[in-house]
Amino acid sequence: MNNVIDFVNTNRDRFLDELKAYLAIPSVSSLPEHRDDMRRCAEWTFAQMRGIGLQNVHLAETPGHPIVYGEWLGAPGAPTILVYGHYDVQPVDPIEQWTTQPFEATVRDGDLYARGAADDKGQVFMHLKAIEAHMKANGRLPANIKVMIEGEEEVGSENLDDFIRNEKARLSCDVVVISDTPMFARGVPSICYGLRGLVYAQIDLRGTKTDLHSGSFGGAVANPAIVLAQVLAQMKDRSGRIRIPGFYDDVRALTDQEREEFKRLPFDEKHYRKDLGAPKLFGETGYSTLERTWARPTFDVNGLLSGFTGEGSKTVIPATAMAKVSMRLVPNQDPDKIAALFEAYVRKVTPKTVELTVTRMHGGKPWMTDLDNRFIQATGRAIEQGFGKRAVFMREGGSIPIVSTFQQELGAPSVLFGIGLPDENSHAPNEFLNLDNFYGGVLTSAFLYKEIAG
Amino acid sequence: MNNVIDFVNTNRDRFLDELKAYLAIPSVSSLPEHRDDMRRCAEWTFAQMRGIGLQNVHLAETPGHPIVYGEWLGAPGAPTILVYGHYDVQPVDPIEQWTTQPFEATVRDGDLYARGAADDKGQVFMHLKAIEAHMKANGRLPANIKVMIEGEEEVGSENLDDFIRNEKARLSCDVVVISDTPMFARGVPSICYGLRGLVYAQIDLRGTKTDLHSGSFGGAVANPAIVLAQVLAQMKDRSGRIRIPGFYDDVRALTDQEREEFKRLPFDEKHYRKDLGAPKLFGETGYSTLERTWARPTFDVNGLLSGFTGEGSKTVIPATAMAKVSMRLVPNQDPDKIAALFEAYVRKVTPKTVELTVTRMHGGKPWMTDLDNRFIQATGRAIEQGFGKRAVFMREGGSIPIVSTFQQELGAPSVLFGIGLPDENSHAPNEFLNLDNFYGGVLTSAFLYKEIAG
Repeated sequence: MNNVIDFVNTNRDRFLDELKAYLAIPSVSSLPEHRDDMRRCAEWTFAQMRGIGLQNVHLAETPGHPIVYGEWLGAPGAPTILVYGHYDVQPVDPIEQWTTQPFEATVRDGDLYARGAADDKGQVFMHLKAIEAHMKANGRLPANIKVMIEGEEEVGSENLDDFIRNEKARLSCDVVVISDTPMFARGVPSICYGLRGLVYAQIDLRGTKTDLHSGSFGGAVANPAIVLAQVLAQMKDRSGRIRIPGFYDDVRALTDQEREEFKRLPFDEKHYRKDLGAPKLFGETGYSTLERTWARPTFDVNGLLSGFTGEGSKTVIPATAMAKVSMRLVPNQDPDKIAALFEAYVRKVTPKTVELTVTRMHGGKPWMTDLDNRFIQATGRAIEQGFGKRAVFMREGGSIPIVSTFQQELGAPSVLFGIGLPDENSHAPNEFLNLDNFYGGVLTSAFLYKEIAG
Repeated sequence: MNNVIDFVNTNRDRFLDELKAYLAIPSVSSLPEHRDDMRRCAEWTFAQMRGIGLQNVHLAETPGHPIVYGEWLGAPGAPTILVYGHYDVQPVDPIEQWTTQPFEATVRDGDLYARGAADDKGQVFMHLKAIEAHMKANGRLPANIKVMIEGEEEVGSENLDDFIRNEKARLSCDVVVISDTPMFARGVPSICYGLRGLVYAQIDLRGTKTDLHSGSFGGAVANPAIVLAQVLAQMKDRSGRIRIPGFYDDVRALTDQEREEFKRLPFDEKHYRKDLGAPKLFGETGYSTLERTWARPTFDVNGLLSGFTGEGSKTVIPATAMAKVSMRLVPNQDPDKIAALFEAYVRKVTPKTVELTVTRMHGGKPWMTDLDNRFIQATGRAIEQGFGKRAVFMREGGSIPIVSTFQQELGAPSVLFGIGLPDENSHAPNEFLNLDNFYGGVLTSAFLYKEIAG
């Protein structure tokens, strides 16, 4: 590995220049006017992958933006790693809030500012440079590696599932490495070992054919906005616990080890609260904020709409009332089962004075890997060597549906090793990537391939 | 009175022709393109009032449309009646749903179809013809009469309060007669002796500075949409009773006589429910639908807005949640007192996890007159003579703010005697006035002046 380390250290400036060139391509997948830029960015990625010694590099066309694929399979008998990332980025508006131009990458105080620096071109590039380091320093990689970089992550990865299903044999692997998440805090390299799942649904209530005059009809019929409030109010008790019968049945309890790990994390509750601008933090009694956001399920209302919502007053009894609601799930809750329990409970608590429609929308399974899983352990050792400090184990409150797809279609576990920062502004102006994290990340990735090879 | 009755009966056709001419003027107060028509309609009213023998007839200019005023004060010592009505009408859209043109009054099956036929030109004209009948048949009126016809009722009577305040002496009277409401049902001439008041307010809750990602932050903070639901759910119990402490303290209970009167009314609950398209009627336990809509206070949510309300799903914890709410009040509830009780209760039940703002919007006092009030009794006798049947006593669930203004500024009680019908389409296509009601109404009005004179 010394050759590899030397190669990385002597090529730092070139890596940075190349990354700046990568970030200069405005690969905004959601905007039609960047269609040519998307193609240019895919071709740049293609050329990089060829240049670092990957084989069978090609653009896989999709109905949307192409997927860039390359591989090196010269280690028969060794494990195969699939590296997944994306070359598309978020739009840049509001552009006037950027200190420097989003597609002119600029270093300030050791941080590299540009759209895509952290999410996800910088982290994709980290892997490409780790692969290059092995190939240039030793002529080979310690494990077989497949690299799949898509161009539609920021627009819902619409064509990725089909691609994975159609290319199962080509993509078969022992483990997937995804670098698209932040570390817990600056200077705290992290491994994410759990994600929450999701059930999303819409509740529609109808009281009457049309809106009614609240003077003439007030007192005659149930008001669907009030009924909706009563239904939603029954979803949680005062201690923040969800009241849907059976909701918690399959929840995997936090282990003592996990709770200890979480407690050791440098989490400043007061600063966190101030940052959100919340009068108070609040959640299920008996759990810390990190436990609640990472390892406990939630019930949230995402939207409410009924009646008159403009300026001023209108004395109307609304005909309808609508709520969008979602539940974040934790292992081992099943989205289908929870959706059914939710709907049954809503039906039970909604009075017969209104017509009820429950529409299930998208969802996803929660995900979690054991801390003593061998790939997690390998990542821990790689981080210790790449960053010179022990990794922390964290979970994430959000969902990354692709992780479930990899598990389901390829039977492969994922390792989430990210080098972004919690304040990286990945979907906001002034996105940045810390350069120490980038170089540490290149080394860690290089060590990771070796540690996985064993 | 025989002269008067004869005059009305022999002039029916002319009355109808004149009314058709009145209805032909498109006096839509809300549309700027009808500004000249409004003036023309005011002048038509002015000419009518002169023609029937009123004195001191003039157009009182306002910042909006003029008020037409006239009087006959030739009965010193007799009571003075102020007749109030309006010559402006609602817009006609959707025009394609009219069977005949809205400004070409057409008789079908004994009903006269035109915009303004019932609301309110037809009812204004009814009084003008009753006055004419007395003047032409007997050369005088049995009481002093002042007639004030405004042109801005359909746009909120914005300039009327100022006019009344500035012209207190000119308008001073013993009783105000307002004919701008429907009777209870076809063939059921009615006297409205009570109206509900109103308190309208907006509740705004703020949880955090900005909307949050429900994955990353779900479980960390209170969701203001859920808090709003919990707050609103505490406003009423399951039996429909409002839980604001002190809310019912000043409610005047229904008398046995009133409940008996209401029970006798031809009210078909099943038809009413079907007409509204409601799965079930619902309201405070222990009261009939008419009792609930006329004589019991309400709490309604008029609007709800929070978070994401478009198509599809967005996994957001809303920063804010808003509800517009209103309470219909009954005698002797006071809007200021109820607004204060409401706000105190909202403050009490809203947790400290969110910032609360309560904004009071418009409101108005409930109104009611005793059934044995002498003007109500006079109206009852007039209806018996004009329609040949006993009047029913009803209340209305809505508010007519002008009634409170008359009470407050002139110290005069109002009599609400209307000859519209509940299905008259006053703000919809195919508005109509039943001609039997019109002729019966002219006679009743003529008798009413005499009965009030005593």
